[in-house]
Amino acid sequence: MPNLYVALAHYPVVNKRGEIIASALTNLDIHDISRAAKTYGVKAFYLVTPLVDQKVLANKIIAHWTDGVGAVYNPDRRDALDLIRVKDSLDDVTEDIKSKENRIPKTVTTCARKYPTSVGYIEFRDILAGEWPHLLIFGTAWGLVESVISEADFVLEPITGTTEYNHLSVRSAASIILDRLLGPRE
Amino acid sequence: MPNLYVALAHYPVVNKRGEIIASALTNLDIHDISRAAKTYGVKAFYLVTPLVDQKVLANKIIAHWTDGVGAVYNPDRRDALDLIRVKDSLDDVTEDIKSKENRIPKTVTTCARKYPTSVGYIEFRDILAGEWPHLLIFGTAWGLVESVISEADFVLEPITGTTEYNHLSVRSAASIILDRLLGPRE
Repeated sequence: MPNLYVALAHYPVVNKRGEIIASALTNLDIHDISRAAKTYGVKAFYLVTPLVDQKVLANKIIAHWTDGVGAVYNPDRRDALDLIRVKDSLDDVTEDIKSKENRIPKTVTTCARKYPTSVGYIEFRDILAGEWPHLLIFGTAWGLVESVISEADFVLEPITGTTEYNHLSVRSAASIILDRLLGPRE
Repeated sequence: MPNLYVALAHYPVVNKRGEIIASALTNLDIHDISRAAKTYGVKAFYLVTPLVDQKVLANKIIAHWTDGVGAVYNPDRRDALDLIRVKDSLDDVTEDIKSKENRIPKTVTTCARKYPTSVGYIEFRDILAGEWPHLLIFGTAWGLVESVISEADFVLEPITGTTEYNHLSVRSAASIILDRLLGPRE
């Protein structure tokens, strides 16, 4: 199993005008990415938000499916949402992983531009085959702030399809990236 | 560009108890799958529902982003939602494609079980490299009714990750399948 963690950051991200904001949770981000994380053997899925009301909301959604009537109605969702941890900041996520692994995880993000730390999917599959823990960070809204990307250990190449269009939802992007990094190779 | 069409069926699908139902639209299915379809060069994305109120709702959502304030606010969404056609039935979808292509499209679905018509992703990439039109059909709710699957020309293998867990959302599954079929090969 890969030694991979995933974080979905609601802060610090940018809005359409490039201003730093804390975004609101989207219910289906929580469901879709936790189910994809469970499918590909991710060790934990962190929801990052410093907003108290959003943390309350996140924990309410998770509890509904893990302890509430949802857990009985749909145990498959319980298994996926059991992966979720709610944290105030990306630093808190790194601390949490360090406390479990006794190693500081290397971080990896995605961006539409090339960086000196840019890696392809095949190359990063090989890196993930090692034992060192890695944290794959996705941004909501219009994406992670520049400093999170430039300070990451690795930046994955943008997902390209067969067109110039490059506006996948974070749910789609996370699913495709987990499949490219961890899916079977025929 | 591939000669591929995608349909998301809200009928005929099954509920948790295996009963045939018409499911309700999910707003983010419309956005996520149209954006993935646009990314991978799909020729049209059909929303299939026989329910009048659901067709009204679908057209309202599409119009907001293609003609309404949404088109100005976010032209990238307009470009994706322009791919959508709302149809009553899968037969109507096939007819629509036939009227454009002068050929009856071959159909392909997904299922967790093996069929005589099952094909792997690599094999189906080669099939799509030809000129014949294909229609990739996804089911909402608990999936397409058995007859749609057994009558399809092809059935794609189930998506496996690195675990036994196999409960991706239709948004994640559609994204991953389009990437496996049409994404770049490094």
